[in-house]
Amino acid sequence: MSALGMAVVGCGYWGPNLVRNIVACPQTRLVRACDVDAARLAEVLAPYPGVQACTELAEVLADEQVTAVAIATPVATHHALARECLLAGRHVLVEKPMAATVAQAEDLVALARERSLRLMCDHVFCYAPVVRVMKDIIDAGSLGDVLYFDSVRINLGLFQRDVNVIWDLAPHDLSILEYLTGRQPVAVSVQAARHAGWEQENMAYVALDFDNGFLAHLHLNWLSPVKIRKTIIGGSERMLVWNDLDPAERLKVYDKGVTIQPRPDRAARDTALVSYRTGGVTSPHVPHGEALAGVVAEFAAAVAEKRAPLTDGASGARMLRILEAAQQSVARGGARVPVAGEGA
Amino acid sequence: MSALGMAVVGCGYWGPNLVRNIVACPQTRLVRACDVDAARLAEVLAPYPGVQACTELAEVLADEQVTAVAIATPVATHHALARECLLAGRHVLVEKPMAATVAQAEDLVALARERSLRLMCDHVFCYAPVVRVMKDIIDAGSLGDVLYFDSVRINLGLFQRDVNVIWDLAPHDLSILEYLTGRQPVAVSVQAARHAGWEQENMAYVALDFDNGFLAHLHLNWLSPVKIRKTIIGGSERMLVWNDLDPAERLKVYDKGVTIQPRPDRAARDTALVSYRTGGVTSPHVPHGEALAGVVAEFAAAVAEKRAPLTDGASGARMLRILEAAQQSVARGGARVPVAGEGA
Amino acid sequence: MSALGMAVVGCGYWGPNLVRNIVACPQTRLVRACDVDAARLAEVLAPYPGVQACTELAEVLADEQVTAVAIATPVATHHALARECLLAGRHVLVEKPMAATVAQAEDLVALARERSLRLMCDHVFCYAPVVRVMKDIIDAGSLGDVLYFDSVRINLGLFQRDVNVIWDLAPHDLSILEYLTGRQPVAVSVQAARHAGWEQENMAYVALDFDNGFLAHLHLNWLSPVKIRKTIIGGSERMLVWNDLDPAERLKVYDKGVTIQPRPDRAARDTALVSYRTGGVTSPHVPHGEALAGVVAEFAAAVAEKRAPLTDGASGARMLRILEAAQQSVARGGARVPVAGEGA
Amino acid sequence: MSALGMAVVGCGYWGPNLVRNIVACPQTRLVRACDVDAARLAEVLAPYPGVQACTELAEVLADEQVTAVAIATPVATHHALARECLLAGRHVLVEKPMAATVAQAEDLVALARERSLRLMCDHVFCYAPVVRVMKDIIDAGSLGDVLYFDSVRINLGLFQRDVNVIWDLAPHDLSILEYLTGRQPVAVSVQAARHAGWEQENMAYVALDFDNGFLAHLHLNWLSPVKIRKTIIGGSERMLVWNDLDPAERLKVYDKGVTIQPRPDRAARDTALVSYRTGGVTSPHVPHGEALAGVVAEFAAAVAEKRAPLTDGASGARMLRILEAAQQSVARGGARVPVAGEGA
Repeated sequence: MSALGMAVVGCGYWGPNLVRNIVACPQTRLVRACDVDAARLAEVLAPYPGVQACTELAEVLADEQVTAVAIATPVATHHALARECLLAGRHVLVEKPMAATVAQAEDLVALARERSLRLMCDHVFCYAPVVRVMKDIIDAGSLGDVLYFDSVRINLGLFQRDVNVIWDLAPHDLSILEYLTGRQPVAVSVQAARHAGWEQENMAYVALDFDNGFLAHLHLNWLSPVKIRKTIIGGSERMLVWNDLDPAERLKVYDKGVTIQPRPDRAARDTALVSYRTGGVTSPHVPHGEALAGVVAEFAAAVAEKRAPLTDGASGARMLRILEAAQQSVARGGARVPVAGEGA
Repeated sequence: MSALGMAVVGCGYWGPNLVRNIVACPQTRLVRACDVDAARLAEVLAPYPGVQACTELAEVLADEQVTAVAIATPVATHHALARECLLAGRHVLVEKPMAATVAQAEDLVALARERSLRLMCDHVFCYAPVVRVMKDIIDAGSLGDVLYFDSVRINLGLFQRDVNVIWDLAPHDLSILEYLTGRQPVAVSVQAARHAGWEQENMAYVALDFDNGFLAHLHLNWLSPVKIRKTIIGGSERMLVWNDLDPAERLKVYDKGVTIQPRPDRAARDTALVSYRTGGVTSPHVPHGEALAGVVAEFAAAVAEKRAPLTDGASGARMLRILEAAQQSVARGGARVPVAGEGA
Repeated sequence: MSALGMAVVGCGYWGPNLVRNIVACPQTRLVRACDVDAARLAEVLAPYPGVQACTELAEVLADEQVTAVAIATPVATHHALARECLLAGRHVLVEKPMAATVAQAEDLVALARERSLRLMCDHVFCYAPVVRVMKDIIDAGSLGDVLYFDSVRINLGLFQRDVNVIWDLAPHDLSILEYLTGRQPVAVSVQAARHAGWEQENMAYVALDFDNGFLAHLHLNWLSPVKIRKTIIGGSERMLVWNDLDPAERLKVYDKGVTIQPRPDRAARDTALVSYRTGGVTSPHVPHGEALAGVVAEFAAAVAEKRAPLTDGASGARMLRILEAAQQSVARGGARVPVAGEGA
Repeated sequence: MSALGMAVVGCGYWGPNLVRNIVACPQTRLVRACDVDAARLAEVLAPYPGVQACTELAEVLADEQVTAVAIATPVATHHALARECLLAGRHVLVEKPMAATVAQAEDLVALARERSLRLMCDHVFCYAPVVRVMKDIIDAGSLGDVLYFDSVRINLGLFQRDVNVIWDLAPHDLSILEYLTGRQPVAVSVQAARHAGWEQENMAYVALDFDNGFLAHLHLNWLSPVKIRKTIIGGSERMLVWNDLDPAERLKVYDKGVTIQPRPDRAARDTALVSYRTGGVTSPHVPHGEALAGVVAEFAAAVAEKRAPLTDGASGARMLRILEAAQQSVARGGARVPVAGEGA
């Protein structure tokens, strides 16, 4: 079978990574790259003389060799560009977040279904080796019941003009959360602030409620003096800490837990019914590997096998339901806002 | 002037620390210690043969040499014991939180005022050398405008029978926050969970709103596999990180910041108006010293000078207003609950 | 069987720890404590009204209830005091290093043997829970062949008047090394320096040769701006790192190694014959517990069972042979100096 | 003035970095690149279609546009290749170590002097921003008298076929040491080991003596389970720690020291004459920047200005005198070996 002919649309910050990985992947072939900035494009394509450059999407879609398009433009343009590609019969891989609104995302999902085309969202962390190892640990039941997910993703970060800190950083955690636990939040409450006269929120605390007592919380901050990327997943049997800034021991599994016996008699407040367990710590080996290579391989496989990719359009739409609810919570001063259900 | 004659009531977990510090302080003299468990008391007092042991508060109050009483019993008993001491004309130092309800706290404050007695709450961190250094840095204006306060206080902690994680841990952060910034929150929203079949919340995210855009957030958790005690205070000029578990560099001041010029023209979204500054890091020397020694010295000084102590009854009452609002937020599923004003 | 009646001689820096542990140990009973400074002694004994204080060794030895003596005086006095105790028929526990010279140590060993008395050296780290866990790991063969031992023990330390940094710090590492590996070095080379006009060496690099290619190295330093207490033990199968300043993960076992196949043909420099293995990291649980409690318990057991204690006089003498060779190496500008064999 | 026309000879591990930096430097122009492996070369040059590829040095030297040659081949070939280039009238930049023997290095130095050509050794760390900041701190006298230099450079590293761990890693530290302190060691003692059946030493402790009590020590290890790259420079006033693996605080200056007053009377062993000072810690900002860019810029400037570069051939020869002495020390079982003086 021949490699999937692809084009990359948008070669600003993230596009060059797509270019590099599509070139490197044996199942894909980069045919074209497109950007409104021809000079930037020439620079990005310098090492790849076989790839055609163009500045208009129409040129991309006119090329019969292009079977699929990867879109890495600003969020506001995702819907229009992806729509055009789908209408032109191309499979589409879109940067996160998939669109600017739930309605746009649902429109793309419906269109792709109608045309029997693949629509995939680049939730890149779901393909990171470290997250794969975490998934294996959780699926094997090592943590017992998963009780909570706590993520801190803070830095002195670049303020974005077109999105706030939630739209910029939360997609990473939300996609990881869905991938690892398979759970959807029912409501979200956000405490956010806009500092230093900026128009967009630059720090936010996002609390996510779930049906069954499970709790998730994200601390997102562009105004932190220190860079922290740490996720704690608490389980009834073991707990897991992912420190993405510690390359030597990125993942640690703590053999720690609390066991509380059901108390038949409410009056008997005997502390002996609570027992703590403090065992050792294990840091499993995490293979090297670029997450984006996994994204490209999965996309090519989904097209070849005519199946939904792991992070399909529907998962992109689910994420947008959470982001919209979070945005409403900000607008309503931190109120708890329900997350719309699928098809709602 | 002779040393202040004191008694300690309650010699369980914290009481022995009070005993030791009151003995060591040149301005105080420990006359008596009282606990319902005579054996425990004997053990605690073994090194101090000159201190009288007793099991009834009445014995304490009958002793003319006792001018002031330090109370370190369970929270539920604070009000009744402190009230009795004040009625008997004794100055009172109470463990945090000062009482179980705002009403109780206000009653004690009123009573002490009426009788011209000192009422102090043992907000011990306000006397820790590291917090003193932080206070000096903030008061000197080094941070510029203080933008946010973020505290993480998590551990695999002992579940308490009589209080939840908020009542156990938040008082530390709330007292530090008031001491450092002089600000009172106007509302509080809490996302909390009770895991492992326990009756009390064992993890909580407490978000505190202030009038002027300032934001504070506490992550409190008895179910964390790792112990973290880290506070970040973001300022417009510099930022500060207090890592209480790094004895060699407990405090770091980051010469980092973001400057955003006011934009006369909303349409002109020029990123050049945002500038980042990344300078060095300074870790000021933090003197050694036990915080509780400072508490005892301040209490003795306040009594001697007939003035309010730094962490007086009113500050204890203010903290209870926040704790009560937090508890209501938990009860109302994370709703934003206003914090009652003083005298409200 | 009744508890072993003991006395502590020397209540300066370390003696109070002996006092506390001998009081606490069920197999021992502290009868007397002795120090030339009566005021210091009174302070140390305040919590223990049942213990007799005295300022002369003669008083200790006149007390029939004293069956064994623990000596924690300056090194220069160890030999004379221990000798007197042995001559008076008492078992002896001596602080490290056991004596000031090999000759003194051998004299004590011979005397104790002659009188059938227990002579033990307080090599306290051999009783630390973390070292016990390391011993179990090594004895179980987890590390494969043990290849090297590298220890860094540095700090801005108190300069000692009577000993240099080698005599102060090396005993810890030398006793751990002997305990863990059972090996004796054949030669020692020391690079040392005396800085800041001081008479004693305040930093030293101590390299220890062994017969079989095994190498040990100690970096000892009183002049370091940072405190490091880290030991690496390299094995052919796994490697171990002990970081004594990381209470949460004091010990880590790295499933890492290098495998090199014997090369039949010298000319064939095929790198494929070398293979690296990088697996996970495990941090075994280290139980809490004070090492000195283990010292006291072992001493009492050795007396009761009429057997040599784990760290007996002979091990104290072996350590002195290394220390003397190290001192000669310093005197000879870093020359490699053989370590005298037992009975040499 | 036109840019310096350059060729890179050797495009294995390090050569591609030279290629990239010579292309990027405004003062240099990459004309040719040469490697015996044409396929590897094609891959390296793919992004740079304007650069000529060739497999023979003769082709390089036949090209009139090539004014200077950068050599990044195995050490054993440095001398022959550099000699040929110098004889052909080309300036030469050589990878570290500059040659395989002192004699070879001195031959190159003499030849370059004779022909008035620039000969530079790529001691790349001397151009690293962090080392530049350290140099400024030391030159400003902030550390007071510099007392010692302690470097740990360990990892589970790739075993090299043609050099041992000393020749591989020590050049980094030796060049930094010379650059920062301007001092030359008078003798070297090395404790080394060959583990796992390997022919080359894979771990070594290198102690360097200096005339005036200054001491330097390097721990070099390819067999460590953990990666450490940490240098401590102790001074009489302040001390400095460079942790190259901590990107956020790569450099720390500790305001710590020991002051010892000269003691007129040897008998008066008064500890009060020693005083410790423990102040804060400062982590100066280290600008971003690739060290190799500085190497290339310095080489171009030295050619243009007809002056010796900072790390000239003579410094390369001085390093080889130390490496040869170290090798002899290994061969003589760790003996202290004098380092030959310049022109010796």
